[in-house]
Amino acid sequence: MSLIEFSSFVSDLATHSGRAILPFFRTALSVGDKSSGADFDPVTEADRAGESVMRHMIRQHFPGHGIIGEEFGSENDEAEYVWVLDPIDGTRAFMSGLPLWGTLIGLTHHGKPGFGMMHQPFIGERFSGDGGAAHYQGPHASRTLITRDCPDIGGATLMATTPDMFTGNAADAFARVQAKARLTRFGCDCYAYCMVAAGHVDLVIENGLKPYDIVALIPIIEGAGGIVTSWDGGDPTRGGAIIAAGDRRVHEQALALLAGR
Amino acid sequence: MSLIEFSSFVSDLATHSGRAILPFFRTALSVGDKSSGADFDPVTEADRAGESVMRHMIRQHFPGHGIIGEEFGSENDEAEYVWVLDPIDGTRAFMSGLPLWGTLIGLTHHGKPGFGMMHQPFIGERFSGDGGAAHYQGPHASRTLITRDCPDIGGATLMATTPDMFTGNAADAFARVQAKARLTRFGCDCYAYCMVAAGHVDLVIENGLKPYDIVALIPIIEGAGGIVTSWDGGDPTRGGAIIAAGDRRVHEQALALLAGR
Repeated sequence: MSLIEFSSFVSDLATHSGRAILPFFRTALSVGDKSSGADFDPVTEADRAGESVMRHMIRQHFPGHGIIGEEFGSENDEAEYVWVLDPIDGTRAFMSGLPLWGTLIGLTHHGKPGFGMMHQPFIGERFSGDGGAAHYQGPHASRTLITRDCPDIGGATLMATTPDMFTGNAADAFARVQAKARLTRFGCDCYAYCMVAAGHVDLVIENGLKPYDIVALIPIIEGAGGIVTSWDGGDPTRGGAIIAAGDRRVHEQALALLAGR
Repeated sequence: MSLIEFSSFVSDLATHSGRAILPFFRTALSVGDKSSGADFDPVTEADRAGESVMRHMIRQHFPGHGIIGEEFGSENDEAEYVWVLDPIDGTRAFMSGLPLWGTLIGLTHHGKPGFGMMHQPFIGERFSGDGGAAHYQGPHASRTLITRDCPDIGGATLMATTPDMFTGNAADAFARVQAKARLTRFGCDCYAYCMVAAGHVDLVIENGLKPYDIVALIPIIEGAGGIVTSWDGGDPTRGGAIIAAGDRRVHEQALALLAGR
């Protein structure tokens, strides 16, 4: 398969999963309605619809590839190529009507993330990367994604989805970084990582991630010139405690603060 | 002026302020660039550009009206009709590249909020209301805004811009509500209030607001069937500690928790 064909296939994955998910967005029943006994959870329905569409398309086009997905588990995950899918990253944002959730589409080769896309179908934005370059396509512009310089953590904008993801030692570690950063902003899920790739944000520090929460984002951030690791500087592909930075200098400073050095 | 003419004027205000602001969004220089000595702050520039456009249009069409704006202060603010403007509510979101900031356009009559609009020009969304009804216009749909039922705070989704807006007694008061709510989400500014009006969120509780942060949002939430007051149940138009709810029952429960009752 040529690069053009691959790119067209991934674009179709995003388009069709977006069409499957979007009808569920902003259609939650009120809390009062739920007591009627109906067991309708729009975010779960949307998650399943989006992942089913993507799994079907991948099986048709790449029967030899493996798939790891948030909703339907793993199939053939020892294959050379494995797709790592999260149809709705940011379920709380989705449930609250906020268009900062995204569909994550990652592809690993021998276990290493080689391609990733974050698709926000409501706004109509696609962030994609292959580790060597990264690209943005949105309602007002298309452009190359490049992280911004941030030589010192004192000038850094820091993001995390919610303070509730840090408890005990992790809360202390995050607080040490927050105390040094210029600005902290909560509430972004995958969107925060894309803002690092786009050069609007310097650091994302999170905890308790699953592989499908991060695998698709790694080639985007690395392609834009940034770095993603675990809190101890290791391999981020298994999830857990993750730090992403646009500039290696601020990444190093944050690692030291996380470690209490 | 007829309702149609008024509605067309407000729509023009939103369109032209959006055009003035949008070129500054996602154009921040990197932290490193700033040390070059240039004193360019895109969010301030955008704020001024947006407010200047709106002030000019209002002066031309309604020379007798007053204006209160975030950037350029008050003029003729004892007039019968006074416009209350915040060109960019959510400057931190704006600085971080997140499209959850909004342009707030409010109009008071004898000091009482009579019309309000929240415009998010990047996504292309307009939430508007006059206290009796409220309306949404977005990229995928237009519809009437109606808050959702939430009889019990145990089922409520709660939002606030950042935990940092609460200190001392206010932090304790917010924590009491948060402990009872089903879900808390940070990071939304004006967008959170619009999600209450749209029936996706049940409560917004904030502190330290200015009048221009809230005046335009009151007719939207009230028009959708919700309620906005100060934490002690009083007039919200002066800002300060504000609570907005989609259902009066959850508003009452939250007021009691805020008061420590």
